[in-house]
Order: sequence, then C-alpha cells, then structure tokens
Amino acid sequence: MDIAKLKHLLAQVASGELKPDDALDRLRALPFEDIGYAKVDHHRALRKGFPESVFCAGKTPEQIVEIVGRLRGQGSNVLATRCSPEAVAAVVAAHPDAVHHEVARALTITVAEPRRLPGYVAIVCAGTSDIPVAEEAAVACESVGSEARRVYDVGVAGIHRLFGQRETLEKANAVVVCAGMEGALPSVVAGLVEGPVIAVPTSIGYGASFGGIAALLGMLNSCAVGMAVVNIDNGFGAGMLAGMISRLIGRGQ
Amino acid sequence: MDIAKLKHLLAQVASGELKPDDALDRLRALPFEDIGYAKVDHHRALRKGFPESVFCAGKTPEQIVEIVGRLRGQGSNVLATRCSPEAVAAVVAAHPDAVHHEVARALTITVAEPRRLPGYVAIVCAGTSDIPVAEEAAVACESVGSEARRVYDVGVAGIHRLFGQRETLEKANAVVVCAGMEGALPSVVAGLVEGPVIAVPTSIGYGASFGGIAALLGMLNSCAVGMAVVNIDNGFGAGMLAGMISRLIGRGQ
Amino acid sequence: MDIAKLKHLLAQVASGELKPDDALDRLRALPFEDIGYAKVDHHRALRKGFPESVFCAGKTPEQIVEIVGRLRGQGSNVLATRCSPEAVAAVVAAHPDAVHHEVARALTITVAEPRRLPGYVAIVCAGTSDIPVAEEAAVACESVGSEARRVYDVGVAGIHRLFGQRETLEKANAVVVCAGMEGALPSVVAGLVEGPVIAVPTSIGYGASFGGIAALLGMLNSCAVGMAVVNIDNGFGAGMLAGMISRLIGRGQ
Amino acid sequence: MDIAKLKHLLAQVASGELKPDDALDRLRALPFEDIGYAKVDHHRALRKGFPESVFCAGKTPEQIVEIVGRLRGQGSNVLATRCSPEAVAAVVAAHPDAVHHEVARALTITVAEPRRLPGYVAIVCAGTSDIPVAEEAAVACESVGSEARRVYDVGVAGIHRLFGQRETLEKANAVVVCAGMEGALPSVVAGLVEGPVIAVPTSIGYGASFGGIAALLGMLNSCAVGMAVVNIDNGFGAGMLAGMISRLIGRGQ
Amino acid sequence: MDIAKLKHLLAQVASGELKPDDALDRLRALPFEDIGYAKVDHHRALRKGFPESVFCAGKTPEQIVEIVGRLRGQGSNVLATRCSPEAVAAVVAAHPDAVHHEVARALTITVAEPRRLPGYVAIVCAGTSDIPVAEEAAVACESVGSEARRVYDVGVAGIHRLFGQRETLEKANAVVVCAGMEGALPSVVAGLVEGPVIAVPTSIGYGASFGGIAALLGMLNSCAVGMAVVNIDNGFGAGMLAGMISRLIGRGQ
Amino acid sequence: MDIAKLKHLLAQVASGELKPDDALDRLRALPFEDIGYAKVDHHRALRKGFPESVFCAGKTPEQIVEIVGRLRGQGSNVLATRCSPEAVAAVVAAHPDAVHHEVARALTITVAEPRRLPGYVAIVCAGTSDIPVAEEAAVACESVGSEARRVYDVGVAGIHRLFGQRETLEKANAVVVCAGMEGALPSVVAGLVEGPVIAVPTSIGYGASFGGIAALLGMLNSCAVGMAVVNIDNGFGAGMLAGMISRLIGRGQ
Amino acid sequence: MDIAKLKHLLAQVASGELKPDDALDRLRALPFEDIGYAKVDHHRALRKGFPESVFCAGKTPEQIVEIVGRLRGQGSNVLATRCSPEAVAAVVAAHPDAVHHEVARALTITVAEPRRLPGYVAIVCAGTSDIPVAEEAAVACESVGSEARRVYDVGVAGIHRLFGQRETLEKANAVVVCAGMEGALPSVVAGLVEGPVIAVPTSIGYGASFGGIAALLGMLNSCAVGMAVVNIDNGFGAGMLAGMISRLIGRGQ
Amino acid sequence: MDIAKLKHLLAQVASGELKPDDALDRLRALPFEDIGYAKVDHHRALRKGFPESVFCAGKTPEQIVEIVGRLRGQGSNVLATRCSPEAVAAVVAAHPDAVHHEVARALTITVAEPRRLPGYVAIVCAGTSDIPVAEEAAVACESVGSEARRVYDVGVAGIHRLFGQRETLEKANAVVVCAGMEGALPSVVAGLVEGPVIAVPTSIGYGASFGGIAALLGMLNSCAVGMAVVNIDNGFGAGMLAGMISRLIGRGQ
Repeated sequence: MDIAKLKHLLAQVASGELKPDDALDRLRALPFEDIGYAKVDHHRALRKGFPESVFCAGKTPEQIVEIVGRLRGQGSNVLATRCSPEAVAAVVAAHPDAVHHEVARALTITVAEPRRLPGYVAIVCAGTSDIPVAEEAAVACESVGSEARRVYDVGVAGIHRLFGQRETLEKANAVVVCAGMEGALPSVVAGLVEGPVIAVPTSIGYGASFGGIAALLGMLNSCAVGMAVVNIDNGFGAGMLAGMISRLIGRGQ
Repeated sequence: MDIAKLKHLLAQVASGELKPDDALDRLRALPFEDIGYAKVDHHRALRKGFPESVFCAGKTPEQIVEIVGRLRGQGSNVLATRCSPEAVAAVVAAHPDAVHHEVARALTITVAEPRRLPGYVAIVCAGTSDIPVAEEAAVACESVGSEARRVYDVGVAGIHRLFGQRETLEKANAVVVCAGMEGALPSVVAGLVEGPVIAVPTSIGYGASFGGIAALLGMLNSCAVGMAVVNIDNGFGAGMLAGMISRLIGRGQ
Repeated sequence: MDIAKLKHLLAQVASGELKPDDALDRLRALPFEDIGYAKVDHHRALRKGFPESVFCAGKTPEQIVEIVGRLRGQGSNVLATRCSPEAVAAVVAAHPDAVHHEVARALTITVAEPRRLPGYVAIVCAGTSDIPVAEEAAVACESVGSEARRVYDVGVAGIHRLFGQRETLEKANAVVVCAGMEGALPSVVAGLVEGPVIAVPTSIGYGASFGGIAALLGMLNSCAVGMAVVNIDNGFGAGMLAGMISRLIGRGQ
Repeated sequence: MDIAKLKHLLAQVASGELKPDDALDRLRALPFEDIGYAKVDHHRALRKGFPESVFCAGKTPEQIVEIVGRLRGQGSNVLATRCSPEAVAAVVAAHPDAVHHEVARALTITVAEPRRLPGYVAIVCAGTSDIPVAEEAAVACESVGSEARRVYDVGVAGIHRLFGQRETLEKANAVVVCAGMEGALPSVVAGLVEGPVIAVPTSIGYGASFGGIAALLGMLNSCAVGMAVVNIDNGFGAGMLAGMISRLIGRGQ
Repeated sequence: MDIAKLKHLLAQVASGELKPDDALDRLRALPFEDIGYAKVDHHRALRKGFPESVFCAGKTPEQIVEIVGRLRGQGSNVLATRCSPEAVAAVVAAHPDAVHHEVARALTITVAEPRRLPGYVAIVCAGTSDIPVAEEAAVACESVGSEARRVYDVGVAGIHRLFGQRETLEKANAVVVCAGMEGALPSVVAGLVEGPVIAVPTSIGYGASFGGIAALLGMLNSCAVGMAVVNIDNGFGAGMLAGMISRLIGRGQ
Repeated sequence: MDIAKLKHLLAQVASGELKPDDALDRLRALPFEDIGYAKVDHHRALRKGFPESVFCAGKTPEQIVEIVGRLRGQGSNVLATRCSPEAVAAVVAAHPDAVHHEVARALTITVAEPRRLPGYVAIVCAGTSDIPVAEEAAVACESVGSEARRVYDVGVAGIHRLFGQRETLEKANAVVVCAGMEGALPSVVAGLVEGPVIAVPTSIGYGASFGGIAALLGMLNSCAVGMAVVNIDNGFGAGMLAGMISRLIGRGQ
Repeated sequence: MDIAKLKHLLAQVASGELKPDDALDRLRALPFEDIGYAKVDHHRALRKGFPESVFCAGKTPEQIVEIVGRLRGQGSNVLATRCSPEAVAAVVAAHPDAVHHEVARALTITVAEPRRLPGYVAIVCAGTSDIPVAEEAAVACESVGSEARRVYDVGVAGIHRLFGQRETLEKANAVVVCAGMEGALPSVVAGLVEGPVIAVPTSIGYGASFGGIAALLGMLNSCAVGMAVVNIDNGFGAGMLAGMISRLIGRGQ
Repeated sequence: MDIAKLKHLLAQVASGELKPDDALDRLRALPFEDIGYAKVDHHRALRKGFPESVFCAGKTPEQIVEIVGRLRGQGSNVLATRCSPEAVAAVVAAHPDAVHHEVARALTITVAEPRRLPGYVAIVCAGTSDIPVAEEAAVACESVGSEARRVYDVGVAGIHRLFGQRETLEKANAVVVCAGMEGALPSVVAGLVEGPVIAVPTSIGYGASFGGIAALLGMLNSCAVGMAVVNIDNGFGAGMLAGMISRLIGRGQ
C-alpha cells in the first residue's frame, strides 16, 4: 500500500493532477521507511539462501513455534539457536522436517538448499567442553552453504595436537576458534595461519575465569594479526561471519 | 646452518655413513623448529608484499630505528604504529623515504609496492575524535594493498548522515567501524550491509565510558549478524583483518 | 496529636499562659517531623490520583496482601510490581477488583480513576524479550493517568522498523526506550525526536552483556542530547517519570 | 542538489518523459536521506533557538574555532563545553561576543535570544567541588531559554541545609542534582519533590569512589520515584534535558 | 603439658641440672604458642559472657550440631548465624533450650546470662527487606548483653520517617544502619547523630545494585564523619562491634 | 532573622493579632530548618571542642584560606586535610598559629584546647609507605582530644614485630589499622585485641592492588570480629571515629 | 605410521632411491608433529608415575567413564577431580579399584605406585569450609608420590593456632595454603617459612568476597617473599605444583 | 637486652632467688617476641647469603639511602628494586660498590657472595617490552645465587621462536615467564616443560589489557599443570621464588 500510495502520487503528477512542487512536498513528508524498504529485506534473505535465525533463549516453546512458522511461511530457511529440549520437541512436532543438531542445541529447517560456497571454514576448539559452542558455529556456517571442518580438542596446554592440523587450518577461508579458560588458542592459531581468525570466548572455566571474561580479554589483547572477537559463547555469530567471508570469496570467483 | 645440519645428515645416510635407524633417532631429537621453519615466515612476508609492523608505544626512538632498519634490511615493507613525534623524527632521519601519516600516528616504508587488491574497504567512524583510530585502520589496510574509503562523522545521534553513505558501505569488501562512547554505530552499520563488519571501540568518552569499555561491551553484545570486535583503539588490527579479507577475495578471482 | 500539641501551645500563647519567648524555646526543641509532616504526604497522594506502589520482589504473598490492604484502606490507588504468580493469586483473592497485567508482572487497584493527562507517552522496546520491562513502564505510566502507546520490536539491527514509527515518537510527551544487549536504541531514538527520552537498560542478553551492564553503559555514554537512564529492568521508574512529565505538561495547560 | 534531483524527476514525470513506474523504481533506489532530510534538522535548530553544542575535550583550539565558526555561520546559537583555557582564548579572539562561563568551563554565543520558557529549573549540588558540573548544567539550561536557580552545597551529611530550600525545589519544572562521593543527594531530593529529578554523578571523591562510579551506582539504585541519571560529570546533558522539560511545559501553555 | 614442659625445665634450672644458658637455648627453640597461650583465649570468652559464634552457611546440620555441642561443653554461650531450617531443627533437637530467632536466621544458647551493658544500640534499617540483616545485628548485640532498639523502614526516599526517631538515634551508644539499593541512609544518620555509626550494606536491590556493591560503595564514600562499614549483609559483625562499644562504655563507668 | 520571624509570629499570637489556628497554618508552612536548627550545630561543635574539618583536595588555596577563616571566625577549631604545599603556605600566611603536620598533610588551628579524653587510641600501620595515612588518623584523633599512640611498620610478612606491641594494642580504646597491598593486618590485629578495630585500606601497592581495592576487599571480608572499614586512604575518618569512641568512654566515666 | 613414513624416507635415501636434497624438501614439508612427538608424551607420563588427570565438571558420567577407561588403557594412573556423586558411581562401577576421596571430590586409579618422593608438602587451610579445596590439593600431591601433611583450621583471626604448627610448616618442601574470605593466611605463612608457598584462594565467603576475588587479590598483593598464586579453588593445580617441587628435590638427591 | 632479661631470670632460678613457679608466671607474661625472635631472622638472612630487599617505589632517595645503609650495616647483601634514576644516583653516591642493573631498574650490593646454587632458572619473556620485568626477575634470582638464563621475545604469535629454546626451558630448575597483553605464553611453556612455571603478568598492552588484568586472568585460568602466578609486573617475587626452588634442589644434593 505504501508503494500504492507512491504510485498514486506519481500517477497524479503524470496526469497533471498534482504539480511537481506539491509532489515534492508530499514526498518529503512521507515517512521514508514506507518506500517498500522493509520488503527488500525479505527479498534479500530469500535470494541468498541465508536463513532467518531465532535466538530461543528466553522465549517460550509456543513463541518459538510461532516465529518459526511465520519465517517459514515467507519461504525462508530457518536456524534456531539455544533451543531447550522443550523448544525442540515443540518445533519438531510442528515441523517434522526440522533437523535437530543436538550438541549445538540448534534446529534448522531447509526450505531451499543454500548455494554451496567454495572452500571451507575451519572450526577449532580448545577442549571438549567448548564443543557445543563450536558446533553452534559449525551449524551456522553450514546453514549459509559453507562447509565446516571441525578441529577439536587442540588446546595450548598440549600444543603439538594443534600443529598436526596445521594444513587444515592454513587452507581454510577463515578459522573460527572457540576457547574458554585462558583463551590463548586463537592467538596461537592466528600466529600460524594467514586467513582471518574469528575468536569465540566460551564460558567454560571456574574461579577467575568469570564466566568467560578471562578468555574474552585474552582474545581482545592478542598480539597476533588478523583476528577479531565475538561475544562469549556466541558460536552463532562467529559461524555466520565466517560464512559471510566464504560468500565474499565465492562472489570473487 | 640448520638446513646444513639436516643436509649433512641426509648425505651421511646417502653415503651409508649413517644407518636409517640412527638417522631416525637423530631426527626425532632435533628441535623441530630448526627445520628452516622461521625462514619460511620471512619468505611469506616478502612474497605477499605484506608489511612487517612495529608497535612503537613503549619503545624508545633508538629501539624503533633499529627494528625498522632490521626489517627493511630483510627487504620487507614496514608499518610502524603509535609513533610519538620523537619516534617519527628519528625514523625519518634514518629513512628519508619513510612516509608519515600524521593523524594515524603511523609511518610506512614501502620497499616494494604491494599487489593492488580488488574492491575496497570502507572505514567508518562515529565522531571526529575517533578519526585517529580510523586513520590507523585505513593506513594498515592500504599497506596491504587494499583501498580504504573513508566515511567519517556519521554517529548514531544523527543517523541520517550514515544513510547518505549507504551505497559506499554496501559495496565494500568489509567495513571497519570505529566508535567510542556508546559504541552503537557498528550495530547499525551491520544491520544495513551484507558484508563483514569489524568493530573498533575507541577510548573516546568520559565518565562511565571507562576508557572504551562501554563501547567495547556495546559492540560485543550487538544483536546484528556479521560483526566481530577488536581491542579498544586497535585500528591497526581492524585494518589488517579487513585487508586480509580483501586478499581472500582477490585470491578467489 | 502533634498538631494538637502545637495547637495547645499556641492557645497558651494566645491566652497569655505562655510567654512568646518560652514558646519559642519549646518550638525549637520540638522534633520538626512532628509538625504534621507525614500526613501531608498522604494528602498529596490522594489529591493527585497517584498510586502508592509496592515492589513485591522479596516479599511474601502475606506481606504483600497486608501492605496492599493498608494502602487501599487509606483510599489510595495501588500499583504492585514484580508480582510472582503466588503474589497475584493472593492479592486477587483478597481484592477481587485487582487487575492483573500479566506480561508486566503487575497488579493495579483503582479506587479512584486518575485524572486523564494530555498527550501520550511512547513506550519503545528493541526486542520481544524486552517487552515485560516495557509493559511495566506502560502500566506505571497509565496508573498515573497518562496514555501509553507501545512501539515494540524496533531494535537497531533493522533500523528501518523504527523509522516507520517516527511520527508516533515525535509527538509523544516523552519516550521510554527499553533495550538490552548493546542498548543502542535509545541513542538512535534520542537522535530522532525532540522530547525527553528515558532509557531503560534490560537484563536481556548473554555473555558480556553482564546482566544489563553493557546496555546500561551504552545508554549512559550516549552522545545524543535529551536522554537520561534508570536502573536495569526498572520499567516502573521510567514509566512513573514519564507520567510525571505528562502531568507537568497538563499543569501547563 | 538532492532536492534538485527529485524536482527534475518529478518534472520528467509531469512532462511524460518518465513513466510513473520507472519513477517509482528510481525513487526506491534513491538513498532516502537525500530527500532534504538533513536540512530539516538545521531548520529545527534555528526555529527553536536551541543552540548547537560542541564538546571541546580532545579537540584542538583550531578545530574548535573552525566548528564554532561553521555553526555560527548557519545562524545558530553555540554552546561549547569542556573548554580549556587555550580553547577559550582562541574562540574569544575569533568571536569577541562569545561569553565565557568560567566555572562551567563553557562558552556561549547568542545569535538570537532563545524564547524565554516558563518557570525555572533548580540546579542543586552536594558540595562546593561539584559546582563546576552544576554550572555546566545551569549554562546549558539557560542556553535553551529556561531560567536556572542554583541551590549549592546542600549535601546529605548536613541535611537541614537542604530543607531550607525545599520550596525552591518543589516549585521547579525539574531538579538537576549533582553529587559525587556517595551520591545520596538526588534520592533525598526525589523523596521531597513531585517533579522530575535528573541526577548527575560527579567524579568528586577518592578511593572507592572510583571516579564517580559509587555515586553513579547510588543514583541508579535509588528507591525514590521520578528520577533518572546521566553520565558522570555530564552537567550539559542534564541541563539540556531539564531545558527540554521546561519547553514541553511551555508548549502546554 | 606445655606448661608441664616449661615447669620441668625451670625445675631443672632450679636443681642445677640444667645451666641457665642451656635453658635459654631451649626456651628460644620452644614454639612460643605452647606457653599456654591458646587456653587464655577460652578463659577470656568465659569471663566476659561473650558467646562463641558459628557461621552456619556452608556447613551441614551435623557439623553445626557438633560444633555447637563442643562450644557449649566448654561452658560458652553460643550464637549461630545464617541457619537453614534444617540446621535449626537439628540444633533444637540436640539442644532444646536453644532459642530460634527466625527473622534473623539465628540461634542462641545462653549458658550464663551476659552482664547487662549500659545504654543501648540503635538498629536502623531502610526497608522491610533489610530487616533480616538488621535482626541479625540486633541478636548479635543482645548476645553480648547490650540492649538493641529497632528503628525500621526509615529509608531516605521518605526522610521524615527518620526524623521522627531522631532522639532514639541520638542517645544510642552506637547506631547500626542497614540499607541496600543506594545505601544512602547511613550517611544521613551519621549527619544527624554524634555517636559512631556502623553501616551495613545489604544485598537488597536489583540491576545495578550488583548484590550490594552499590550500597557498599555508597557507604564507603560517605562524606559524613563517624561512620565505618562492614561486609555486605554482615549484620552479625555490625552487632558485635556495636556491642563491643557498649562494653567499652560500661568499662568506663 | 528566622528566629526573629518566629518571635514575631508568637508575639502576634500573644497580642491576639493572629489566631492560634492561623499561626498553626503558618508554622506548618515554615521551612522547619529555619527554627534555628543550623545554629545548634555550631553550638555543638564549640561546646565539644570538636574541630570543623576541611577536605582540601580539589580546592584552591584561596578557597581554603577563606573557608578556614570563616570557621575560625565562628570560634571553631579547624582541621584541614589533604593540604598541598601551596595550601599550607597560604593558610600559614593567613593564620600564623596554624600547625602544619607535614607527614599527615594536615593543618590544625586550635582556638580552644579540646577536653582531654581518657585512655588512648592505637594507630597501627603495616609499612612505612602507609605512614601518611596513619598520621592523618593520628592528627584527627588528637584534634578531638584523644591521645594517639603510634605502632608503625608491623606488617604481616614479619608478624613477630606486631606481637611485640600487643600490650599497647590491647589497652587501647580502639585501634586504627592502616594497610595497603593485601590488607591483612587489621584481621590479625582484630584477632588479638578485644576492642574495636577500624581498618583503613591504603592505596599503597601496584598491579592487582588496584589502588587499594585489594586491601579494601580483604578488610571487608575479614573473619575477625569487632572490625569495620573506612574508605581507601581515609585516615581522617578512622581517626575521627576512634576519637568518638574515646569520647563515649569519657562520657561513661 | 609417521615413524614408518620417516623410516621409509630414510631407507630411500640410504638406497639412493631418493636424493638427499629431495629428502630435505620432503622433510621440511612434513608436519613436524608427526615425528612421533605425541607418543613421547605418553612415555613420559608412564615413566614418571605421574597420573593423567580429568577435570570432571561439565562432563557427563558417560564421558568421564570413557576418558578414564582410555587413559587407564594406556597404562596410566588416573586422577579425576570435581567428581559429582553420579560420576563417582559410574566410574566406580566401571573401575572397582578406583579410590573415592570424598571430601576432595576426587577419584584415583593407581595402575603403578608412583615413586615415593622425599620430604613432604604441608597443606594448610584457614577454615573448615576450605577443607575440600585443601583435600583436592592433598590428593593431587599424593598422586605424584609426595606425602601431604594437613594443617587445617588455622586462620589469621586466631593466629596462635598457626604458630603451634610452625615446625611442620618450616620443614616442608613446599606449603600449599588455602584460604577464602580475606585470604590473609598465605602472607602470614610466607612470612614464617623459608620454602615456597603456593596460595589457593577459595570461593568461601559472602558479600564482597565476590566468590573468591577478595582472597585472590589479597594473595596476589602479598608483601611476603616466596609465594605464588593459583586460580580460585584450584587445589588440584597447587597440589600438582607442590608435587613437582618435591620431585625436583628428589632429583637433586 | 631481652635475652639479658631472660638470662637474668634463669640465673635467678638457678640461684634459688626465684622459684620455678614464679618464673613460669613471668615467662608467660613476657611478650613472646622478646625471646630473641627477631634476631633469629637476621641470622637467617646472613647465614644464607639471601639479600634483604627494598621496594623503592614511593620512597624518597633519602629514605632509600638510609634503609640500604642500615641493612648493609647488619652485614646483609642488599637488593633494591623499582629504583628511580634519583634513587640510583643517591645510593651509588653513598655506596660506590653498588651495582646498577639499568634495564631491571634495580641495585645490588654484595657484601658476601651468595653460595652458587646448582642448575639454573630460565627467564622467559614474550615481547621486548616485557624485558624490564624479566630482568628484575633475573637480578632477583641471581641475587640468591641461582644462575638466570634469558630467553626473550618468544611470544605466542610466532610460536616457533619458543620451540627453538625448548631444551633450555626443559632443563631449568624452574621457568619464570613474563608476558603482557593476552598472557598466553606461560600456558604454552607449561605445556612443554616438566618443571614449575612461575607466571608474571606484565602491564604491557593497551585498551582491554587493563594494565595487566587480561594477562593476569589468562595466567590464573591456564589449563596447563605446574604453574602459579605472581602480581602484575612482580618480576622480583617470581625471581625470588625461582631462587628458592633452586635452593631446595641444592639442599637435596
């Protein structure tokens, strides 16, 4: 209808019913967001095969089912993160084709397969307790069409484990590194590889880890070049960013 | 000489002077870093036209001149950041071809022009006080061969200023966004563009800005997708990371 | 009786029983709070139709029922916030005319309709998880007679949603803006409107949101003019302050 | 020229040179901020007699002189805050009619007297060391046409001093309360008056005052109704907000 | 036996069996704490009627019963704080004469009535939620023989309530003031009375109260003279200190 | 004149010019602090020989000279703390009888000798760097008439030094203990003595001492009974509180 | 097979099948960690009788049983810490020879008795609530063959208790000191003994203890020489480090 | 004289002048620290060749010269740390044999060469800016007779530099590792070596390094076994502790 309004105005100008100057005044008064802007967003999501995502923490199963249904109804792929078992049950009941990624605590619904992006993203984690965050990153990355290669349990206290995976890391489009406690692993990885490193502090640890602050600060203060940091436990954000980088490379090709 | 040692060992094996099993024992005992590893690093820097960087804060002009000289002597381009006026004077005296980027408080010495990377990086800042950090990002980005387009003084308190630059932002390989105080600008930018956003909190502010902590926390907690954060005032790190992304795209082409 | 005491003293002066100088000494010795001061307060509440409020967190249902009963007994409207389901059940059982605002976790008892104040207050929130705080603000605002217009789910990551509501925001007496995570929305709103903006950080978020600290700091450091901040999740305080501003305008009329 | 562009487009539609549908496409592609939006802002400032403000901390005298000149050139009143002695000297040299508010560390240039707003704002401070922040609030308030009545040195350690000023506080449109150390004064004031209280924590104190954090937290946690808080030492923000409230009342009249 | 050892040594010196110089060497080697030191402590507690106290948080009911029994077996009065319902049940079962102070979450066993100390201590609290901490202070104070007069619910948001109790406060030996949220009450009290004020921040509050940190900081930064602070929720410590002050006064008489 | 006003009112009642009821209304409207209240305060200070104190940090020498002159003019003893050398010079020039306590950075002017209080206060410090804070406490204590006995440089790292002073500590009215770094000394002292311990964290230390926070936290968390804490470096507050306790004992006698 | 690969390469060189220079190239390309490096680690653990440790917090009983089984399968002793009752039950069911250290919440499986190290480690704790952390340290220490002598409940509030144990402390190889609340005990111990002190802050405390931060800061800021600190509640780390020191001494013998 | 007193008492017992029981009473009353205790400490320092240390920050050159003179007068070696140039000049003027360790900002005076301890301590640092802290550790270590081997500039961003020094690290008695920024180096080192690692966070860094807090937290949270941490920039403490460990090994031999 906004477009309708605009069309009508232009038709009036075309027919001489409205003078250009008066049309100008009306245009300036129009709330600019009415120019079909919001719709463009939806088009963009559909066109690119990027999923719409739902952060489920703090939402009831009913709310989640409703939001997922609405997004799917728009033809969008859906990625739901931080899903409680109740949320999983409710969504799967409503959408039997939903895929549950248990370790990642995520659900995906694929309406249309995303375009396969070139190369892959390496998803690295320091300890086994960091795996849920790493898996969230992997699922997010895959949801945008970029392959995720997992390199798990390679923390700095036994650094030779990391070196055995060096080639996998070096050839990745980007490396997502999840680590709690002292959070040193991304610095070491960024010292080894040439590509972008996305560091994810996890809340794993105790005492002076302060729920991930120690790891977060360690990563922010890294002296290694080519690394940036996302919020504590934000595997989703890291995976999406890595997927974006894969897409950029794909665009270059 | 490490290579020499290794060659000698292999020659001994070839000549029968040393048995394969004994050679094996010696190889396992060899510190692995002696296998020419460090040299590879230098090769990599030279091959790619990436500069070696020097963080000058806390170093004396004499130390800086010496380090810069050594790097240049290896045939490397040099990027020195956080240069005091004294450091600038000393380096320029020793290296008259050094270029001083005054606002960025940086120096560059270009031994070999870096390969021009495709596209450009947008460097955005919220207020005029954030410009030095943004300039550091721009100089870092340019030092790796990626064009930097500056979009300055577009903070959220007058958000229409930002929208006027939307096209520049959307077509960038990556967007570096520097902001102090509440640090809200990167979230808004990441909501507008499709590419990666690298957020740089600056120490601009007073009172409860706590030297950039408020901005840092704001950026880490952004609900926008496709954004990661570097340390407070770390324009260098953001610019290098953006340059890396440009290089990845270039590689794709 | 305090007033009685004072009357008696003045009567003694009037009758010549007490000399002015002795009366003076006695007056100076009187604890000043005995001059009927506390009563004035109650008069004020009744006269204005402002409710007495009860912060229920940390109180037992029995305590809440008792306090509500006492306030109501004084003829006062009552607003109870942070009500647990048990507290709601107990109060509604005792006061069947109590209205339960479920999302806001609030109860109101209206003994006398408050005077309708001119204009309205806009209540804005960034995400759906911020709605309970926003509703608390709305209920508080309405409890003092000021209309509340809700503008929900207009966070900065999709800023065009906000712009569609610009007129509603601009014509409000005051705008209450609730946001968690990076807390950027109030800054953007304050950059758009001319009236006072009351920012409410919410505890929505995870990791480095630190239960609302990130949002709080973001709001305190806003570079936008015309904005002040209340405690994390303090929808009540923001709504009351906005209602006060509506009352001030009403007084002007 | 943006307007020019738009006019041209509409003229083309009027002349039949461009079909309404094609015009529609072009309109949607137009960056919306080009629709004369920014200019409206300037009109608003001029129309209302509100000054443009310059935060001088971290800017060179040259930069400040240039910005002040540009703003004045647009016919705007100017309020510069956090002015160093050097900045004052430079601005006064360039603009001899600039008024220097020494204690407030502020400069004002009045091109057009702002409309006098009804009533007054009370500016309260706890100790003599808080006066510079209070004066900044007063100057800001006056710059928008609202009278400021100063009530200084009435901290809670001698609370009777405050009570002597109760009438002045109660009749104010709004009360700005500046306090450092424990920051308790705004709570006490808000318990006494009916109007809005804007609390300004100051950095006055030592040890565990942490540069104003103790006062800030005290104010945010106030159990008094009708109070909101601005950043540490942000007298400017509080004064502007109080002035806005005066304007709202004026509008009501 | 330590005393026995020492006696033996001195007897040996007396008998000429041991030379003074050799005795000197042995004395220097003796662990000094063996000279009956620890016993003195127990004597002190008995002599003064001061209770031995048990902090029950984090101890099992069994442990608490055992410790209480041991202390009582030494003839000591006992004060147990932070008692869970389970701990209360277990102690009362084992010691039927134990008195349960429900609001204070404390238990006392009085073997010998403490000497009644002169005067009284005023125990003040800001809100009803602070009462448990205030009661802990009162019980501790009474356990050492000092009367406790309660002045509850007199927070600064309605400061006239406090003034009605001014005489009670002024005549107290010491005033314990418990307050959460902004923690302003002790400052106001200390501005009114001449005696020592012991401030107890409580963990009552939400959001930026940070579990009592805001109140703690407010109290530490008080500009009022004659006040000191104990740990958050440490009613016990404040009550004991106030009791000590009563004892000092009693000693003076 | 307030008293005058009141006298006039009472005279009007006495003369029948004003009816008691009307007088009552006027009395209720009178700001209560006008009833000579503030003057009482001054009387109190004079009567007790307690000095008026001036916190000089952040005041200019001129301001300090003026405040000191005004207080002295009221016949009050004066204690000025945190005096810069410039402040000292200015005050001594204006008041040649002012005594400069150099290490304590304090000035005292004694108009009337305070009454000598019974007993003494022990002032303890851990290291030589804590002496300025301890001296401030001692001077404050002496300014109210209570003897201060200094026990310096007895930190816990060589705890036998402390034990040599045990008798001095045990017989004190109260013990002020100043310590920086880990702040453990007050806990040890409070474990040895029966009287009140006032703990003063100092800002002495480096690294994770955070300007006295480590010591402050250590003192707040002490498991010793009978101890309370003042702000970091607040020797003045501790000394005044200890002096108050001496006065209470004196009153008992 | 890595070794196999290397053997094959050397055999090719020996046979002349591969030229030394080509072998050199291949060697440089070999991921260095493939040279049997990881295996050496396992050998080391077996040779020394050091256990492999498992941090059980955040792992499921199933995961723990699997990891324990794998480690044991390599012939390694096993030390599992932070075991929940469920984990204990599961491990004991699978490994009936596992020893459960209940207070320490630890499990040990001893495949081969570790070599008995000379001397002993003293394990000290301040209060009974610190015992679980101290026991974890003791079990860790014993697991590497070093005797642990427990000195419990000797906190600084009754410091004579500590002195009775002085000889035990002085003759230890190293002293592990666990303390919560103010964390002062390690400083006092380090002032008494000549050997290394390993300080373990515990999370015991409330209010401003902040879960062990107060104790941690106290220990880091100790002015005593010869002391270092581990993470909050990290008895395991302290015990292992003390055991290492015992081993070093054993090596010296 | 204390000893004299004790001798006299024992002589009286020996002569029958004093009965053992009376002597016992006097002994118990004697402050125990008078039993020559303090002197033993001095003996210990002399006997072992351990220096007395002076922390010079916050002391005047005069104070330092006096303390150094007093210590030396007792025949002690002296180690002064954190020496300003002025302090250095003053001490060297008074003690021409004092050795100035410029980078370490330390002074040593060697009255008697300490006994050479077996083995060596490795002193490692991450970046060149950490060298002053590392040098302080080295000088402290050498001052107790333990050789220090320096391994500098081997930070984790180029981790192969560290591996080249692996043998030096593995054979050390203990490894002191100094690192600022993310503080990851000690974790990596502790993962490589078998001996104790003493981690020293340095204040090197900017932004979110918070003056060394990031490094401190990283080190405290290390998942590597066999590591403990000292205060930020506390090279002295780390070096002394490492020296103590060398001494323990020497004792074993």
